[in-house]
Amino acid sequence: MAETEPRVGEQRPGGRATRVRTSVLEATSELLMEMGYDQFSVDDVASRAGVHKTTVYRRWPSKAELIADAVRVHSAEHVPIPDTGSLLGDLQALAGSVIANICSDDGSRRSRAIIAAAAHSPDLTASMNSFWAERFAMSVPIIERAVQRGELPPDSDADLIIAALIGPIWVRFLLTGEPIDDDLAHRVAQLVAAGATATTER
Amino acid sequence: MAETEPRVGEQRPGGRATRVRTSVLEATSELLMEMGYDQFSVDDVASRAGVHKTTVYRRWPSKAELIADAVRVHSAEHVPIPDTGSLLGDLQALAGSVIANICSDDGSRRSRAIIAAAAHSPDLTASMNSFWAERFAMSVPIIERAVQRGELPPDSDADLIIAALIGPIWVRFLLTGEPIDDDLAHRVAQLVAAGATATTER
Repeated sequence: MAETEPRVGEQRPGGRATRVRTSVLEATSELLMEMGYDQFSVDDVASRAGVHKTTVYRRWPSKAELIADAVRVHSAEHVPIPDTGSLLGDLQALAGSVIANICSDDGSRRSRAIIAAAAHSPDLTASMNSFWAERFAMSVPIIERAVQRGELPPDSDADLIIAALIGPIWVRFLLTGEPIDDDLAHRVAQLVAAGATATTER
Repeated sequence: MAETEPRVGEQRPGGRATRVRTSVLEATSELLMEMGYDQFSVDDVASRAGVHKTTVYRRWPSKAELIADAVRVHSAEHVPIPDTGSLLGDLQALAGSVIANICSDDGSRRSRAIIAAAAHSPDLTASMNSFWAERFAMSVPIIERAVQRGELPPDSDADLIIAALIGPIWVRFLLTGEPIDDDLAHRVAQLVAAGATATTER
């Protein structure tokens, strides 16, 4: 049916395919948070989402792919890649939305559930590694634009700069449990921007 | 018996208390890695270590305390706090031993098992948060010595500097799965040392 197969490039935000995707990925996140990775199946996801299981299997052949896609959609919505016009502004905005997500009840529960699952399920680890590598790659333009503006030299290590920005937030969230506030976004962005700039002045 | 109760300050590396502690904590780590946090009991630890269970309960009232202590001993052995005489040297040495530990088969398995357990067991989360806060506090002298040498100003944010150093290593280990090599220790130490120095020159 044409209804279920929108043409490429056609905007169908309320289309059936979009609704199915949303409810399948939402069901996946709920089951992961409620039960943990080992305790639910792709069939449970189909049943919770109210769709036929072949609909799920056709698009997502495994639980790991369901979870990676759920995380992908959540991140795209909650942690956009900023373009504020300056390196410091971009780093601060990115750290700020990572913090806002990780400190929200929903974002915190999702993140913990995924880390717990990925840490002991090798098949999920691979999918999550791909997701994270993709997310970090999406942040690389922040550094490229800073290079174009002359704020940073061409040989800047984009991956390292982004990891040094995000790393301290995850260290607090996962390891020390220390409070994470908006002030952290400001301080970590300042430290990393200063380091990236100064490293290159040598 | 005096044999089991060495006086405070007395060095008894081969004493019975030390041997018991070592075998109990080793049994704890093995069971955690083999079975996961939910699947073993304090009694299992006693049995694996070959000691009476009251010996274990007297010193470690819960699994969470056993695990936190096992991690504490492992870290003290494998990730010493350096004192090389310079900020860059110390940061590089600390990042280097975190990397060496996390990249070893044993260190990698331990770290994953603990993260997986802490992410879904609130009682363990609290013990592990204390352990990590303690570890980070142990690194603060690196920054204090740099302040005394005039490398950094007195208002340097020691916690943030250490977290920015360690964070990117954990990001690679837990999130992106990208290769971690000794070169990373050098690069992250340089970025963070430059940032900490430059931030304060404003």
